[in-house]
Amino acid sequence: MSKKLTTREEDYSKWYNELVVKADLAENSGVRGCMVIKPYGYAIWEKMQAELDRMFKETGHENAYFPIFIPKSYFSKEASHVDGFAKECAVVTHYRLKNDEDGKVVVDEKAKLEEELIVRPTSETIIWDTYRKWIESYRDLPILVNQWANVVRWEMRTRLFLRTAEFLWQEGHTAHATEVEAIEESKQMQEVYATFAEKFMAMPVIKGSKSESERFAGALETYTIEALMQDGKALQAGTSHFLGQNFAKAFDVQFTSKEGKREHVWATSWGVSTRLMGALVMTHSDDKGLVLPPNLAPIQVVIVPIYRKDEQLDAITEKVNELTKELRAKGISVKYDKRDTHKPGWKFAEYELKGVPLRIAMGPRDLENGTLEIARRDTLEKQTIAIDETVDFVASNLKQMQDDLFNKALDYRENHISEVNSFDEFKEVLESKGGFVSAHWDGTIETEEKIKDLTKATIRCIPNDTVIEEGICVFSGKKSDRRVLFAKAY
Amino acid sequence: MSKKLTTREEDYSKWYNELVVKADLAENSGVRGCMVIKPYGYAIWEKMQAELDRMFKETGHENAYFPIFIPKSYFSKEASHVDGFAKECAVVTHYRLKNDEDGKVVVDEKAKLEEELIVRPTSETIIWDTYRKWIESYRDLPILVNQWANVVRWEMRTRLFLRTAEFLWQEGHTAHATEVEAIEESKQMQEVYATFAEKFMAMPVIKGSKSESERFAGALETYTIEALMQDGKALQAGTSHFLGQNFAKAFDVQFTSKEGKREHVWATSWGVSTRLMGALVMTHSDDKGLVLPPNLAPIQVVIVPIYRKDEQLDAITEKVNELTKELRAKGISVKYDKRDTHKPGWKFAEYELKGVPLRIAMGPRDLENGTLEIARRDTLEKQTIAIDETVDFVASNLKQMQDDLFNKALDYRENHISEVNSFDEFKEVLESKGGFVSAHWDGTIETEEKIKDLTKATIRCIPNDTVIEEGICVFSGKKSDRRVLFAKAY
Repeated sequence: MSKKLTTREEDYSKWYNELVVKADLAENSGVRGCMVIKPYGYAIWEKMQAELDRMFKETGHENAYFPIFIPKSYFSKEASHVDGFAKECAVVTHYRLKNDEDGKVVVDEKAKLEEELIVRPTSETIIWDTYRKWIESYRDLPILVNQWANVVRWEMRTRLFLRTAEFLWQEGHTAHATEVEAIEESKQMQEVYATFAEKFMAMPVIKGSKSESERFAGALETYTIEALMQDGKALQAGTSHFLGQNFAKAFDVQFTSKEGKREHVWATSWGVSTRLMGALVMTHSDDKGLVLPPNLAPIQVVIVPIYRKDEQLDAITEKVNELTKELRAKGISVKYDKRDTHKPGWKFAEYELKGVPLRIAMGPRDLENGTLEIARRDTLEKQTIAIDETVDFVASNLKQMQDDLFNKALDYRENHISEVNSFDEFKEVLESKGGFVSAHWDGTIETEEKIKDLTKATIRCIPNDTVIEEGICVFSGKKSDRRVLFAKAY
Repeated sequence: MSKKLTTREEDYSKWYNELVVKADLAENSGVRGCMVIKPYGYAIWEKMQAELDRMFKETGHENAYFPIFIPKSYFSKEASHVDGFAKECAVVTHYRLKNDEDGKVVVDEKAKLEEELIVRPTSETIIWDTYRKWIESYRDLPILVNQWANVVRWEMRTRLFLRTAEFLWQEGHTAHATEVEAIEESKQMQEVYATFAEKFMAMPVIKGSKSESERFAGALETYTIEALMQDGKALQAGTSHFLGQNFAKAFDVQFTSKEGKREHVWATSWGVSTRLMGALVMTHSDDKGLVLPPNLAPIQVVIVPIYRKDEQLDAITEKVNELTKELRAKGISVKYDKRDTHKPGWKFAEYELKGVPLRIAMGPRDLENGTLEIARRDTLEKQTIAIDETVDFVASNLKQMQDDLFNKALDYRENHISEVNSFDEFKEVLESKGGFVSAHWDGTIETEEKIKDLTKATIRCIPNDTVIEEGICVFSGKKSDRRVLFAKAY
């Protein structure tokens, strides 16, 4: 398979699809809309999981596991929730196969479930049905639980990582005695997500709230982090929902307060998914392949020997082994690729494609001179340095690259937030440069929908730091008291 | 809820069921046969996962993720495989719900899948369908992949952890160029499982091979580790399968060898599941509750303050904070429970129930004397020691307790392996003391089945270290060349 990619300029969407497959992140499976996450892609996801899991635990959360199946009747207890998910869910109706008269394997119609089961698209209903048993008094609150799981949403148009029928995610589900505490929790998790995105993914995000029509089905408020991809389209990277008492009421979850009163419990839920993998790819990568931020790269440094004779390889290997040991002692992950089945040039292209942050090449002349060549994946700059300096050089360059990637993405994002004051300007900016369009909006669902129909742009969020100011809706001309961010989005 | 358990003597099975629920490990959900794994239970599972995952990676394996759904047609490509699983699988037939005329939520019959999907009971078929795309030449081999996932087997009679419709597990799936290499891999993973069981779970296991009728559906050889529970029943704790070329042939996975020939790939698969949680509970726990081996306990040391006045609590807390810091610096997990909502006696019972290995109590008199009281969960022995000695005492006692638990379980196991030479003796031993019965067997499925019908005992394994010796089958009187182990089993 050729390593050459369609360029972003030629076809951004095609570039993304090719890159995900060629860099061994994921591929389509034989099951419609379901992906296979390959070892290299999964290793990045594991690194994401590890950091997020640590952050969840530091904020007092524990993991648990709830059933993958949800009885249809649970699912429909919260009205807006079932409306939001009913159109795209996998339904289990039978629990057995059998051989028919011709020996063909068929569904055994006798083994029909009394009540159909839904493969969870999200777990609020099964979890709140469980919380009813866990909560009696204020002493049982808060419950701060997270689940790492697979979920299924029967999307009709799918794309690797960005929109798949099955995906992996974490879903936090918390229960609180007061409204204030639940709102604080949901805002806290928005902060956790933003910190993760910026510090580990090197992906700047805008924190804000969703408009009513973009909220999670069953939420009173959805807090979001929104990122911007290199093609000027936004991507919702994580959401945290304040659910009010909706699920507590639907599942009759009450507690006895300190004052002895029975009250309904307040809820939040929050999640990020393997969609982040798509965001990571689209934020930093280039026409040569992936560019991975060092904080999430499964391999941070790859070392390639360059040699003609076997004795040369032995001498290089000896030096590399020393170096590898020193690097690993600093917590840096290193791969030494001395396979004789592939040439150095092939390997260089391979690790560029896979986004390994630093590549070291060492040949016989380097050994003589006590040097090596080191190349940074993002800038593609090469430098010859002394072997003795390598550990410090690597450590500082990994840190620098992490910062540079963030700053580069931030610059791009800042250059792609445009304030507009008329609908013509709105459309013009959206067409010519894309990105976020900051505009006054009258706050109605009708205007939001009309703008969407005409431009495909949706309200990504009402930023947390939006300024209260008098203005006029770009579409309807009605009064508005703040700007919101529109964009075309993934 | 009362903390008091039914005793093992009274009703072992009831004791187990109560313990799993009361110790907050797991509970039944509203979905038939599916459990909720509660945070405390999940924390133990996470510790198991972390150790196993480390061991898999140390032996060269990588993680990946494959779809939860398997098209019915894939599932039936390997004949013995479909026979083994067809009778207990959840079948997805539709992908949408809708509101009917009365507004009731029903399955949308228009959204019927062209081909039904099976919720994976195990992933050989979907994985080998994928490997076909990954493997062209001997250079692509071996593939050493593991998956952490949920699977579904529609069991009719379920018990928390031991047999549930949905369970969590890991499944390794490897592909090799030669038969020898594949057999070595499957044996290696049996060793990994045995090491994990003995070192971390403190659970001695017997390594052996399954008889033909007990093999995995599609395997040529199943290597197993078999443990013995306190009621004398065996429990299969992990299996590793040599699959030959069965799946490669079913899914047409061939490679070009070094010599340029096209050959079918050799396969293994291996797995352990949340069933290990049940094994852990049943191996060590007692009538007061869980007994957790320190290497897997989420909380290794709990500290309970004993006081009358708030000033006393403050002084104790100050001392405890120092101690906690020192213990944590040694990598020991500590919980300080100073809740004022519960009395010390209640807390003591609570942590006994939850199997926390060491419990420290500290009161005002201890402070005066520079001492504290420390109790070991397995022996229930209490000792008063100097505060200064605590860190060393804790470290050495955790280690000692880990060893003691293993040795105690090993003693029990050794006392419950009985060599028998007649079928009367076989039945008598099985009835009177249970455990493993080591007996000559003629090697036929008929004899195995008859013995099972008459005694409920199955062949647990042909031990790896069985001695080749002349003998006579206890049941048929025919010639036999080795003893095998029978037992009643979970």
